[in-house]
Amino acid sequence: MKLLITKDYETLSQLTADLILLKWSENHRVNLALTAGASPKRAYEILAERLQTVHFDQSFAHFYNFDEITLKDQEDGLTMQALMQELFQPLGIEAENIEVLNAENYQDYDYQIAEDGGLDLVLMGIGEDGHFCGNLPEFTSFDYGVYRVPINPGDELYQLLDQATSHTPGTEMVTFGPQTVLAAKELVLIANGKKKAAIIKQALEGTITEDVPASVLRLHPNLTVILDQEAASELTA
Amino acid sequence: MKLLITKDYETLSQLTADLILLKWSENHRVNLALTAGASPKRAYEILAERLQTVHFDQSFAHFYNFDEITLKDQEDGLTMQALMQELFQPLGIEAENIEVLNAENYQDYDYQIAEDGGLDLVLMGIGEDGHFCGNLPEFTSFDYGVYRVPINPGDELYQLLDQATSHTPGTEMVTFGPQTVLAAKELVLIANGKKKAAIIKQALEGTITEDVPASVLRLHPNLTVILDQEAASELTA
Amino acid sequence: MKLLITKDYETLSQLTADLILLKWSENHRVNLALTAGASPKRAYEILAERLQTVHFDQSFAHFYNFDEITLKDQEDGLTMQALMQELFQPLGIEAENIEVLNAENYQDYDYQIAEDGGLDLVLMGIGEDGHFCGNLPEFTSFDYGVYRVPINPGDELYQLLDQATSHTPGTEMVTFGPQTVLAAKELVLIANGKKKAAIIKQALEGTITEDVPASVLRLHPNLTVILDQEAASELTA
Amino acid sequence: MKLLITKDYETLSQLTADLILLKWSENHRVNLALTAGASPKRAYEILAERLQTVHFDQSFAHFYNFDEITLKDQEDGLTMQALMQELFQPLGIEAENIEVLNAENYQDYDYQIAEDGGLDLVLMGIGEDGHFCGNLPEFTSFDYGVYRVPINPGDELYQLLDQATSHTPGTEMVTFGPQTVLAAKELVLIANGKKKAAIIKQALEGTITEDVPASVLRLHPNLTVILDQEAASELTA
Repeated sequence: MKLLITKDYETLSQLTADLILLKWSENHRVNLALTAGASPKRAYEILAERLQTVHFDQSFAHFYNFDEITLKDQEDGLTMQALMQELFQPLGIEAENIEVLNAENYQDYDYQIAEDGGLDLVLMGIGEDGHFCGNLPEFTSFDYGVYRVPINPGDELYQLLDQATSHTPGTEMVTFGPQTVLAAKELVLIANGKKKAAIIKQALEGTITEDVPASVLRLHPNLTVILDQEAASELTA
Repeated sequence: MKLLITKDYETLSQLTADLILLKWSENHRVNLALTAGASPKRAYEILAERLQTVHFDQSFAHFYNFDEITLKDQEDGLTMQALMQELFQPLGIEAENIEVLNAENYQDYDYQIAEDGGLDLVLMGIGEDGHFCGNLPEFTSFDYGVYRVPINPGDELYQLLDQATSHTPGTEMVTFGPQTVLAAKELVLIANGKKKAAIIKQALEGTITEDVPASVLRLHPNLTVILDQEAASELTA
Repeated sequence: MKLLITKDYETLSQLTADLILLKWSENHRVNLALTAGASPKRAYEILAERLQTVHFDQSFAHFYNFDEITLKDQEDGLTMQALMQELFQPLGIEAENIEVLNAENYQDYDYQIAEDGGLDLVLMGIGEDGHFCGNLPEFTSFDYGVYRVPINPGDELYQLLDQATSHTPGTEMVTFGPQTVLAAKELVLIANGKKKAAIIKQALEGTITEDVPASVLRLHPNLTVILDQEAASELTA
Repeated sequence: MKLLITKDYETLSQLTADLILLKWSENHRVNLALTAGASPKRAYEILAERLQTVHFDQSFAHFYNFDEITLKDQEDGLTMQALMQELFQPLGIEAENIEVLNAENYQDYDYQIAEDGGLDLVLMGIGEDGHFCGNLPEFTSFDYGVYRVPINPGDELYQLLDQATSHTPGTEMVTFGPQTVLAAKELVLIANGKKKAAIIKQALEGTITEDVPASVLRLHPNLTVILDQEAASELTA
């Protein structure tokens, strides 16, 4: 594990933006799975600024959503809608460079990724419960490739999703499992803020266990962790 | 440059066959450009035997012809016909895993390779004139990507080709140029026999020059050269 | 995971020998941790034959023992003695290319490996109990780097070791833990014979758990598994 | 070739600084050869700032000078003095992480680099005459590994050096040749300003020739070129 601890969220975001840019600009196909959500928000803004000041051939990078939650009466799921709004539209990524994982194609998706040449980079955040991608503590098995979790209106997950979106949640979540993620060539985990400090300590210094799904990322030979000081504040090493 | 000198052609062929097999069996897309011709003949026979005794998922490897010579009244060119006979048919490679370079698509081919993720392996022989792929001393520029050489019935090349095939040569040769080949992740050059000894010395120990096209391969950071003792017999180092 | 199933042990051994040879012959430092024991026995014999017929610069490869068991009144431990006899002496590997892990230096060893540039290849067998390197089911934690297991004369392990060696076992085992092994660039697991079939099924198709230590190897992005038909006979896929 | 064209020198320098930082922070030995001189000046300043705000284990990166010019009555040569002042001292790089090339050890240096595991990154500028590292148009051969050029007080080079330093030039220049540089895993070429526009056009779009030494860098499979708009202003593509 390669660990970078930055003074603040701004520095974390600059480093993350440049890391993405340097991959994106490869002169042959690269496959990038980049997270939606709060953690990379500023990095994507910086990336959008970079695109105003750095010119390169953007055509070779393909972008993957690494999880998806269906929404009632919506074609796109929760993740794709978020990625469209936070990343793909602001950065002008062409539809032909967006590879969609959804509840229909998830069973063939590990094969599809392999056909595409494998994932070159997966950028992830971590939840306060230790989840990465859609790997929640209660559902995660280290054995899983891409898999499906049913969602029922009575579930805690349903309530959570209901609050997270203006749409009505659907009945399915699909996600890259640990096998899919750890098969990628390079992993990056970012976390910022005081409220991530406890789970970061558990994930990076505690037991590797399915109860703290992100702990398994430490087993990857090419993992970079970028934290701000607050998120790193409980680490002992 | 990584140099392996084998006692004889049989050992060279075994090593080459296993090197190909270990690439072919990757669990994600890999792009292989393998030479036709005399040098790899025995390696391909051994590879065919290996396929009887080694089981693996063959579906992820895509095979490229790195040059082509059109033939009059023939759909396939000289190289594709040879590869079909020597490699693709004996080894049962599916049509969908064969990527065809020809006189129609050569101008877009560098872009196509990049779109496909780049070349993972190029296996080449060397001509007594120092050519690799279709890079003949008189036509080679280190600047070239995939390019076209016109062939006229009056040319020496035409005479040569006329002898090499039972068909009438066409009017065009296309080939991966030095830029295309050196952009690959890994290169392998094989040579055997006394008659290759002089050019091997020039290519590996002489001046790097377009007059000895294969000399440029030494500049690649990941070049493996496998020679039998005869082909290596004039090397000083 | 890349899976190769060979007709028989001889083919497995040929492939393994060539895989090692192709790494060993790199033209810059590479760090190889190769297992002792029954599984690679024939591969090492073939490798010794290859060294009679293939000439290359052997000086850049460094060889590591990935575990060690101390022996009473013996300077070298059980693993180093085995490697000396089975691999290093028959293949003429120079002392300066042998990197020794032992009970004295194990605490700094992860750092030492990193200082050396990291491991390029770890070749392992699997025990019928699912162990790899010295990671026994009862002692393994996925969190461990290089670690130490005390051995007491009353232990089952002591009895086992006592039978395995003509010397009296010592009081310590040290081994690369899962963290150390999975940090390597490339892993190879080999297994042959009927008696490995059940554990291979568990390790490759069962739950990833510390109770079957080798199951964790599946999480590595660059794992090659080479089995003979007997060892593969219980696999469903 | 991967080409990034930035709006200005500041953006070029930010990208370059982060590219270096992301390599420097590897969790195992990496070997970096970074240029002295005007082009990376601002990048190194930004890197020094980054070290105030980004914490990581700096101990695994080793730094190489890729050329050297002896100075009369001075232990360190011109390049090492410049690197000390511009990079090593401001960034607090430890003596034990600095690998010195000089007129005494240059003959063994290609071997030394290979022993060290090979170069992971070479960051270079380009001279208006097309030189990279110490490869001047009049002295460069694509065949050269690390080599020596004698300097005589009557030479144009001597006059040039005499102006460039407050010390009296010595009698020798040593440099990584094209073979040494192109054997590295990754190359980065940076250039900024109007006065580099003409040579950048020649190097990137002109003939690959020893007369424009940097043109040969295009043959490397993993070359990144970062230019500001002025340096890129004569490119046609």
